[in-house]
Amino acid sequence: MKEQLAVDLNCDLGESFGAYQLGHDAAVLQYVTSANIACGFHAGDPTVMRRTVQLALERGVAVGAHPGLPDLVGFGRREMAVSREEVYDMVVYQIGALMAFVNAEGGVLHHVKPHGALYNMAAVSAVLAEALAEAVYKVQPQAVLYGLAGSELTKAGERLGLATAHEVFADRTYQQDGTLTPRSSPGALITEQADAVLQVLRMVKEGKVTSQQGQDVLIRADTVCIHGDGPHALAFARQIQEVLRSEEILLQASGGAGR
Amino acid sequence: MKEQLAVDLNCDLGESFGAYQLGHDAAVLQYVTSANIACGFHAGDPTVMRRTVQLALERGVAVGAHPGLPDLVGFGRREMAVSREEVYDMVVYQIGALMAFVNAEGGVLHHVKPHGALYNMAAVSAVLAEALAEAVYKVQPQAVLYGLAGSELTKAGERLGLATAHEVFADRTYQQDGTLTPRSSPGALITEQADAVLQVLRMVKEGKVTSQQGQDVLIRADTVCIHGDGPHALAFARQIQEVLRSEEILLQASGGAGR
Amino acid sequence: MKEQLAVDLNCDLGESFGAYQLGHDAAVLQYVTSANIACGFHAGDPTVMRRTVQLALERGVAVGAHPGLPDLVGFGRREMAVSREEVYDMVVYQIGALMAFVNAEGGVLHHVKPHGALYNMAAVSAVLAEALAEAVYKVQPQAVLYGLAGSELTKAGERLGLATAHEVFADRTYQQDGTLTPRSSPGALITEQADAVLQVLRMVKEGKVTSQQGQDVLIRADTVCIHGDGPHALAFARQIQEVLRSEEILLQASGGAGR
Amino acid sequence: MKEQLAVDLNCDLGESFGAYQLGHDAAVLQYVTSANIACGFHAGDPTVMRRTVQLALERGVAVGAHPGLPDLVGFGRREMAVSREEVYDMVVYQIGALMAFVNAEGGVLHHVKPHGALYNMAAVSAVLAEALAEAVYKVQPQAVLYGLAGSELTKAGERLGLATAHEVFADRTYQQDGTLTPRSSPGALITEQADAVLQVLRMVKEGKVTSQQGQDVLIRADTVCIHGDGPHALAFARQIQEVLRSEEILLQASGGAGR
Repeated sequence: MKEQLAVDLNCDLGESFGAYQLGHDAAVLQYVTSANIACGFHAGDPTVMRRTVQLALERGVAVGAHPGLPDLVGFGRREMAVSREEVYDMVVYQIGALMAFVNAEGGVLHHVKPHGALYNMAAVSAVLAEALAEAVYKVQPQAVLYGLAGSELTKAGERLGLATAHEVFADRTYQQDGTLTPRSSPGALITEQADAVLQVLRMVKEGKVTSQQGQDVLIRADTVCIHGDGPHALAFARQIQEVLRSEEILLQASGGAGR
Repeated sequence: MKEQLAVDLNCDLGESFGAYQLGHDAAVLQYVTSANIACGFHAGDPTVMRRTVQLALERGVAVGAHPGLPDLVGFGRREMAVSREEVYDMVVYQIGALMAFVNAEGGVLHHVKPHGALYNMAAVSAVLAEALAEAVYKVQPQAVLYGLAGSELTKAGERLGLATAHEVFADRTYQQDGTLTPRSSPGALITEQADAVLQVLRMVKEGKVTSQQGQDVLIRADTVCIHGDGPHALAFARQIQEVLRSEEILLQASGGAGR
Repeated sequence: MKEQLAVDLNCDLGESFGAYQLGHDAAVLQYVTSANIACGFHAGDPTVMRRTVQLALERGVAVGAHPGLPDLVGFGRREMAVSREEVYDMVVYQIGALMAFVNAEGGVLHHVKPHGALYNMAAVSAVLAEALAEAVYKVQPQAVLYGLAGSELTKAGERLGLATAHEVFADRTYQQDGTLTPRSSPGALITEQADAVLQVLRMVKEGKVTSQQGQDVLIRADTVCIHGDGPHALAFARQIQEVLRSEEILLQASGGAGR
Repeated sequence: MKEQLAVDLNCDLGESFGAYQLGHDAAVLQYVTSANIACGFHAGDPTVMRRTVQLALERGVAVGAHPGLPDLVGFGRREMAVSREEVYDMVVYQIGALMAFVNAEGGVLHHVKPHGALYNMAAVSAVLAEALAEAVYKVQPQAVLYGLAGSELTKAGERLGLATAHEVFADRTYQQDGTLTPRSSPGALITEQADAVLQVLRMVKEGKVTSQQGQDVLIRADTVCIHGDGPHALAFARQIQEVLRSEEILLQASGGAGR
């Protein structure tokens, strides 16, 4: 008997801060199976964290920590020359803060996905990837580590024995070596929603993506990044959910390699 | 058979930040039985937190969280008009962040003691005291809640069933109603070290303190606040440790009412 | 020959921060004559400050500094126990930062209006009001100090010889002693837009407002606070502008007492 | 008649923050001719800034702004991927804030020297150097721009017509191309105080430094960086002052190229 195909849809949430509202958290929770909740360094504050955790748990969506660089004004998107030790420490801190809200509400921390520049740096730096994976391992070894498919981060997690979720993007193009086309390059973004849906479907069903160079690349697609902000985000989230369901692909939070 | 008298000596630690050094953490850990470690809001940063947790655990000193108001430049000493909800959320966050370091190092979070203005506000406001106690209860119900002896904070903890440690001060005078003489009033501080030692001894052995008005006041002395900064702090810490030992009073981290 | 009646319409602007957008700055600049621009403590960041200064100068709107308490997560709305010295220093700092952008763009800093809790504290505390007025006086003595009509802040400014602008509110009710009805009290807000317009008209034309107790109170109305956020803010700003113009009241940035 | 040789001794000051003390500002002001005062982003707070400005002006030391990256926990030492626009804006903001204190105390802002990672980035990136120089030019065109001798920063300042001060280091070795030996390389630091003094003397008197490769390199030495922290800093500051005076080299704040 054939195993049913499954995939996770994840979204960054809880990115409001104080008087500032960002994103459509309640709406996007209808379409995703896991929520990456900001932990106060690049976005989020304690009150936003609690409310977002409550909201996600009510909707039955798996809750993860979404740690970022300590750069609120830059929204964690600017790379910083942080050391291995600093990455370990800032990730332990942020996971702990979020876990406290999850546990206080009777939930369990399901995963950790780094944000923005920290995500990108850990995708290519084995040293920072190890620091990040070690932080997850030390604080919550059952948590799934989400990272760019085939990156240093997922490798570092797998070396430590963590469950990992390889993340793919619907609206980004890929290079022949399996990396994302940099945003600064032409053709980095897939602007046609239909093309984005097809790319996701093929990654999930066949484990392949057509690179910008025109050839197929193998890719592992455990979880798809869904945006919660922007004018078309919700419409796309709903569409991708519908198409995946119509293809009888199970939508569920990623259990990683060991599932 | 008579039960042996016991008391806890606690000190605020981990108050360095980035390039800024504060306090003599390694030295004062020789004299205390419990450490209140700053959690990044009024002082401390993730790296300082990890190192201080490691140091305290190595020395066998009980580790507690020391949450404060989000006021780094004011060192958490300025009262702020925070709501019940904000206090709950900021305390959950900070306890969680510190607990992650404690757990990552194989320890267990022993207690929570609020810092500065948050401590003072929770001593007199039943509403904020409840918020703080509830945060401890929801995140780590086994933790001991440290608060000013006889204050709203210890009462709130006791109502929730938390173990509490009633804190007394060696170098502060008391009023007839058991509250501390405000620092702005004359005679608020005990400047003679010998007098401070005698006040502690009497509080621990007899459960009494002579108020500024000259009469005895009943006081519960589970834990004594030891300063880790200032020129005479270490000498006083050593002396109080020696005197208490010479009186055969057991020095150990407070287990609170239920010990 | 009778002097023409004049009033200023002011609005808080530049309250976005990093990735966070707040307010409808470009739209509201059509209706106001002076802009209070946040300075980075309670809201705003250097880039937002520069862009808002540029926008206001392009529209010919008078530019003022809008300093607040160092409480980004609380949007400067939570009172803090700050000292006279701290208020002086934080206001000098923020005025200077904003002035640099104004001067770099070829403009002149026109006024200073404190924000939120700092505004409220300086309205009732003579000590903090003096600190704030002194900061304005030392950095830009030609600037107009905006404060609650008849408050300690305008008094402190006048004692120092600063030009002041007494501010009134369209949507708040007043007490018999000329203070605002606290937001926590019933009837604090005027919800009917027509009533708010009439209150403004009478304050500007007759220098009187009907208190919640039903009697007339003398009030000086140099400048009217216009909100830039919320669903009805722009519609109200447009209406008040139209009504004042139709009454042949001159709309211009406040020159204070000496104009 | 021969012009007298002159050089400036500059030091970073005002790097305390809130309860945190750093450096020996009062002591080092005896030995330097210009003070670079932190502006609150990497170090310093409004109260520290005012006090340090007052202290420097009392001692007759030229006051400069010392803007840094927005990274308090990293003390502005970690490079960040900031844009040209962000650098311009953060430098305008910080210069303005410091200028307000200088002007309030009756002084004039003399110079601007960027801090730490911002200094290093602007030494090698023409784009960031231009942003920084433009910020100085727009806010205070009379100010002298301090930068690494022969770097992109001094070049950018000179292109704009700013006076510049080329900075040299007593305790760092130089490469054949005139750049500093990276701290991570062997032999980067000169540990013998006598060697450091000789290097400074030769740079000031002959305009030459012996590179690590053993050959002479031309270098312009308008100002020497003096450290205000660390155990030997004050002794070295005193010694370099004495030696330069004994050589009849005039010690005065740098007037840059146009002096």
